[in-house]
Amino acid sequence: MSSSMTERSEIRLAGEGGQGMILAGIILAEAAAIYDGKNAVQTQSYGPEARGGASKAEVVISPGEIDHPEVLQADVVVVLSQEAFKKFSTSIKPDGLLIVDEDKVDSSSAPKAIRLPITKMAFETTGRQITANTIALGVLVGLTDVVSREAIEKAVTARAPRGTEEMNRKALQAGFDAAEKVKTGK
Amino acid sequence: MSSSMTERSEIRLAGEGGQGMILAGIILAEAAAIYDGKNAVQTQSYGPEARGGASKAEVVISPGEIDHPEVLQADVVVVLSQEAFKKFSTSIKPDGLLIVDEDKVDSSSAPKAIRLPITKMAFETTGRQITANTIALGVLVGLTDVVSREAIEKAVTARAPRGTEEMNRKALQAGFDAAEKVKTGK
Repeated sequence: MSSSMTERSEIRLAGEGGQGMILAGIILAEAAAIYDGKNAVQTQSYGPEARGGASKAEVVISPGEIDHPEVLQADVVVVLSQEAFKKFSTSIKPDGLLIVDEDKVDSSSAPKAIRLPITKMAFETTGRQITANTIALGVLVGLTDVVSREAIEKAVTARAPRGTEEMNRKALQAGFDAAEKVKTGK
Repeated sequence: MSSSMTERSEIRLAGEGGQGMILAGIILAEAAAIYDGKNAVQTQSYGPEARGGASKAEVVISPGEIDHPEVLQADVVVVLSQEAFKKFSTSIKPDGLLIVDEDKVDSSSAPKAIRLPITKMAFETTGRQITANTIALGVLVGLTDVVSREAIEKAVTARAPRGTEEMNRKALQAGFDAAEKVKTGK
């Protein structure tokens, strides 16, 4: 994966409607721009497939100007549903990273992916499956440092509905912890 | 303004953080794609200015493929704050439409704009200023038909936090009504 400190990073987040992956994209872009002082572009494209329920958010982060807002070859793709996997897990860099919810995407279709029980972790950590998108951000940032941990924590907290800030901070930390385990092979 | 039925439409929504203009952009794009069956791309770009507080969302809607997701010359710009006006009211088509909150953007700086008390209307209609973004969508769609009224109502309802659906429908209708008054000159 390219070094996020010096280069352009392309991230795609995909899931079903209701899993909050568009919000996750907005939070990631705000972390990069508002709190890390980089440039960020966040895009959703909807075509005739939008009716199907799967949606994706794309974020491009760069220390410099962003001329092309499109994700051409993703550095990181995070996928929380089988349908989203089928539609949006293409065009990843050869050394890119694919992270999937292991209970949602069957293993035969993504043998090289990093597999974590993201939705289950959300429920176990906060009692609310809806925090799966925050867990996913924690895993993503923990594995890639595409934005700083401080920045993503501030951005998550700023976007959390009032009263859910602490719950979302716990979910983010659980994502960081899961990423550490992946990195150290434990 | 270009005919939204047959051509590409470029819309920019801008305001301060907390005014919900990014969410308004997502709702507009979802109305176009999920409920009107068009293609839509919705983009936020953040640069060093993001820290300042003003933010913009851009939406491109087209019956056909969207090759360039950037807004080059907007057909419609809606602005809810003076700072957002300064930063994001540029590059409008000669026959384009600028809609501003008349209590937020001073008249000398936008003599040709359509001026409506959008935030005040939100408070008067629903008791909640936060519905100003929904009022803005009602005004925008009422004036331009960039998406159908049915589509924007479904999209607003689908994105409204639980328990606020009716409040948001009322806000949308107030926006439609204000647009009618503008069109008929009453």
